[in-house]
Amino acid sequence: MRFTKMQGAGNDYIYLNGFEKLPADLGSLARQMSDRHFGIGSDGLVIIMPSDSCDFRMRMFNSDGSEAEMCGNASRCVGKYVYDKGLTTKKELTLETLAGVKHLTLHTQNGTVEQVTVDMGEPILSAPEIPVNLSDSPVIAHPLEVEGETFAITCVSMGNPHAVIFLDGMDRYDLHHIGSLIEHHELFPRRTNVEFVEVQSPQDLRMRVWERGAGETLACGTGACATLVAAVLNGRSDRRATLHLLGGDLSIEWREQNNRIYMTGGAVTVFEGEWPDVK
Amino acid sequence: MRFTKMQGAGNDYIYLNGFEKLPADLGSLARQMSDRHFGIGSDGLVIIMPSDSCDFRMRMFNSDGSEAEMCGNASRCVGKYVYDKGLTTKKELTLETLAGVKHLTLHTQNGTVEQVTVDMGEPILSAPEIPVNLSDSPVIAHPLEVEGETFAITCVSMGNPHAVIFLDGMDRYDLHHIGSLIEHHELFPRRTNVEFVEVQSPQDLRMRVWERGAGETLACGTGACATLVAAVLNGRSDRRATLHLLGGDLSIEWREQNNRIYMTGGAVTVFEGEWPDVK
Repeated sequence: MRFTKMQGAGNDYIYLNGFEKLPADLGSLARQMSDRHFGIGSDGLVIIMPSDSCDFRMRMFNSDGSEAEMCGNASRCVGKYVYDKGLTTKKELTLETLAGVKHLTLHTQNGTVEQVTVDMGEPILSAPEIPVNLSDSPVIAHPLEVEGETFAITCVSMGNPHAVIFLDGMDRYDLHHIGSLIEHHELFPRRTNVEFVEVQSPQDLRMRVWERGAGETLACGTGACATLVAAVLNGRSDRRATLHLLGGDLSIEWREQNNRIYMTGGAVTVFEGEWPDVK
Repeated sequence: MRFTKMQGAGNDYIYLNGFEKLPADLGSLARQMSDRHFGIGSDGLVIIMPSDSCDFRMRMFNSDGSEAEMCGNASRCVGKYVYDKGLTTKKELTLETLAGVKHLTLHTQNGTVEQVTVDMGEPILSAPEIPVNLSDSPVIAHPLEVEGETFAITCVSMGNPHAVIFLDGMDRYDLHHIGSLIEHHELFPRRTNVEFVEVQSPQDLRMRVWERGAGETLACGTGACATLVAAVLNGRSDRRATLHLLGGDLSIEWREQNNRIYMTGGAVTVFEGEWPDVK
């Protein structure tokens, strides 16, 4: 079975052509293929399939075999996959996912896709919808005490909850310790992702991400979107800025006329491979 | 550039055909290819090359780009690579490595190699050569106190130092904590690898490995050899036994007539791939 290994901002998935015949148990295939010592190694498996309502449909499986809704970094790679492999010649695409229809814009160079813009939807700022146990919305620079130190948190949901903290000299802090304490703080009934941000200029923000249930990761698309929104709400950045994550850069725009967030970033084909059909 | 991903007992390396033209800077290639998010992902890179004195020569690079001497698990995969790809029809091979000449015996099934036996040489039992700061050799079941608890250590070098500990119900212990304390104990001037072993029968030993400088790993070929030697010295196993490691099983024999250790284990081709020549 042919496969393609791709990454976007360090989120690496195995991409399969679902127009061809695939094994029935995709969860089990994802577990086998994703194993970093006995398999190909990846964050999970992405299948690109025909759709009744959109240009394409994507299904995603985590490395534990469970089906995932959607990942912004993976959806960019889907855009590169379908264009570079000639499955489409369109540069504006609709993508059916478990999290709804996503709109992609492909940016090409020398005939292949280098960058993809994904419409990530509107941010959610209402406290009960995020959810965060506070009575006033939006939650901007709310003081939160953690082990005797006070952090100013701004809360944004992009379908999942984020608590954004601006910190000068953030590498001096033990972000794993603080991230874990805030993730599990009683303020967040469904726990929260935590973003630590250093403003370098109104167009340049350096950030690190503590993902709910996963710990620090190289990048998080929704976290980058939530961070840009939080930075605008705090008067710390323009509505369009580059976010520098450990896994790479993402350019985020919060468009005033329609309140939607657009994420633009690279999509990279790492290598092509052949997985033996009988293991 | 074509590559093959292989694993032996969970040690996974990328194998390249060094009979063909390769980039000059192999250390840099190893770093790029071994990265588990932006590259292929592996413990390192192995190049199979022509040799003036042996059937083949292997060069190994760690994932940080440094050149390694030799790895028993990787040398088994070299045996499978050269036979399955038709570079040889011999089943007894000599292999030139930075750690000297290694002898491989290939065991085939349906025309491909399933298991490989590697001659791992003679164990070193002299305390100053291991090295361990004790006056009497061999060091068998020597009491070592760690945080108020006494462990009986048996010391064996297979070119690198090992301290082997037999523990009933070993999963009840915090092996990472104990392993780290023993690794850095003043008894070991060059630190030590630590093996924890549960004897299930004289032919079956379950073990976990704490590798010097790396922490717990899925498997360690020299650690498995040292463990079998220690088990024989303590009267706990036969001279031939199966060692069950987290990454898989290894069959170890300490042959009486020549004092040498033979390690037999599986070698698996995980997948074939094509790495883009220009990244």
